[in-house]
Amino acid sequence: MIKTDILIIGAGPTGLFSVFEAGLLKLKCHLIDALPQPGGQCAEIYPKKPIYDIPAYPEVLAGDLVANLMKQIEPFEPGFTLGERAETIEKQNDGSFIVTTNRGTKHHAPVVAIAGGLGSFEPRKPQLDNITNFEDNGIEYIIRDPELYRNKKVAIAGGGDSALDWSIFLADVANEVTLIHRRNEFRGALDSVEKVESLKKTGKINLITPAEVTALQGNGKLESITIKQEGEEFNLELDHFIPLFGLSPKLGPIANWGLEIEKNAIKVDNTLDYQTNIPGIYAIGDVNTYPGKLKLILCGFHEATLMCQSAYKRIFPDKKYVMKYTTVSGVDGFDGSRKEAEKAVVKSIK
Amino acid sequence: MIKTDILIIGAGPTGLFSVFEAGLLKLKCHLIDALPQPGGQCAEIYPKKPIYDIPAYPEVLAGDLVANLMKQIEPFEPGFTLGERAETIEKQNDGSFIVTTNRGTKHHAPVVAIAGGLGSFEPRKPQLDNITNFEDNGIEYIIRDPELYRNKKVAIAGGGDSALDWSIFLADVANEVTLIHRRNEFRGALDSVEKVESLKKTGKINLITPAEVTALQGNGKLESITIKQEGEEFNLELDHFIPLFGLSPKLGPIANWGLEIEKNAIKVDNTLDYQTNIPGIYAIGDVNTYPGKLKLILCGFHEATLMCQSAYKRIFPDKKYVMKYTTVSGVDGFDGSRKEAEKAVVKSIK
Repeated sequence: MIKTDILIIGAGPTGLFSVFEAGLLKLKCHLIDALPQPGGQCAEIYPKKPIYDIPAYPEVLAGDLVANLMKQIEPFEPGFTLGERAETIEKQNDGSFIVTTNRGTKHHAPVVAIAGGLGSFEPRKPQLDNITNFEDNGIEYIIRDPELYRNKKVAIAGGGDSALDWSIFLADVANEVTLIHRRNEFRGALDSVEKVESLKKTGKINLITPAEVTALQGNGKLESITIKQEGEEFNLELDHFIPLFGLSPKLGPIANWGLEIEKNAIKVDNTLDYQTNIPGIYAIGDVNTYPGKLKLILCGFHEATLMCQSAYKRIFPDKKYVMKYTTVSGVDGFDGSRKEAEKAVVKSIK
Repeated sequence: MIKTDILIIGAGPTGLFSVFEAGLLKLKCHLIDALPQPGGQCAEIYPKKPIYDIPAYPEVLAGDLVANLMKQIEPFEPGFTLGERAETIEKQNDGSFIVTTNRGTKHHAPVVAIAGGLGSFEPRKPQLDNITNFEDNGIEYIIRDPELYRNKKVAIAGGGDSALDWSIFLADVANEVTLIHRRNEFRGALDSVEKVESLKKTGKINLITPAEVTALQGNGKLESITIKQEGEEFNLELDHFIPLFGLSPKLGPIANWGLEIEKNAIKVDNTLDYQTNIPGIYAIGDVNTYPGKLKLILCGFHEATLMCQSAYKRIFPDKKYVMKYTTVSGVDGFDGSRKEAEKAVVKSIK
């Protein structure tokens, strides 16, 4: 059982920044995310794209935003349960919560903050009858660890940035990489498209277009796929088939937690602390809704901060502590680090 | 008469960021500030001090925060009325406002956003009977333009960073610089104290400590001051006397605008848009109060954003526009500039 002060569901920018504000109040955080790395869609969907509306950043790449947040929260030693989706929540007699993931990992905390963005990103799956039989047995929709594919025979399907970039990456890792797309045209960064083109010429990537995968074969484990190209079908033996057809956000199991939901978002009390209808459960960032809500990262930062202050009062009802200017108070990390503004000296001149 | 869409009172971080969010909605902003430069207390009081709680900045100097915000808002060409204090507000028949400064500059806008921080910074003045007679006639409490002192005889009083730093700076500009402090000990950055010490040794700064200024003489214009040092009084002829005893924030004339005030802050409707009890006047950042308010810069950014969205609805009641992700929509400056994420290409590979 993982124990923490604030259990954060969703490790996007809002969830990450919560760790910092909680840390200033000496509260520890643990984050759960269905994606294999922190950063939410900034890291998974558009790490190379610039964001222009982060205050005091005229321009910042989404991936750099995440890296900067990770550096900012480092002194507060957050815990992470990655690649797992928060599935169930049980309220305990003392008002605390136990949250269990789809892989059975259990987390215990007095406060739960849902920072789930647009929801957990569920892969779009191809329409193939027996596909669920092979999930994690030769079929993956998200690449969690590229080493899984070392010296293996791999086919990727898709025509966007993910399919292009992973084909390029795995060309150096796998024994054989086949890229299958239903059109001849790919849609992605110019650089990636050109790279795939040149890897095709040198034989490092087998390109099969316009084509579709129409069937899967195997006994327990995936052994081959059927590809249909311009009316003709043929089989390809392989170890892994990775359809990368994009991720679509779904509120997912959280929708069944008894929270008040409106237009696919969680209703919160914006007059005070972004708490949901269940005391002790907060919702911050794009996942919440309230009158006048704007789904912007900078709004999530503010909501996270007020959530932490409220969580503090919930955890320590008898203590008083109000968030102070860091310039005056400095920042004490849980790792023993301390950052503070240089103090003025008092020195005599005669 | 200066005309704009949103008239912002206070050019600190919250006021500055409002320009950006307003700009995304194609609204123009003009800012009034009593200080001679933008940035509020970040620029005036602690430009060299680090701030640790700006999201995605593990550490940023207050002066750099202001510089980055100025760069971010540049495409939206904000107007500034600096070194003047907003004094009176008059509501017009059409619901718009005219705001006049202490120097008589008039501004007209349909929306007024007060981003006044802790208030306008009023200098602490020495207790000298006739001091008001000489204000702007040889006595200044804030240095607006160092060129005013070129080749002049200047005395500065004070023992903190401002007194130290301006003595150092003016040593190269003025004909004669005298620094008067009631103790031998100065309180400031080590570097500044040592610099003054060495400028004293080379005769570039006359240091008179422990001493106080006890009287002012002049006919319309300041001509000399009386200095009392260890019981003895003597006169010093000069052109300018600059007491730098610190700035103390005062809500000031805004307190008489008919706004609901609580604990020296302006009450706002945080359930929606940070509007005050007077429709069309908003209060954002440290100057406002509501249940659970935290006086943090990052909260001001959020409040500014919701204010702009609400201002848009007030100015264009029939149009609909909701703030979008800048990564998707890009940023169009009023100066004709455009920033946008690189678009994906659609390219055939055969």
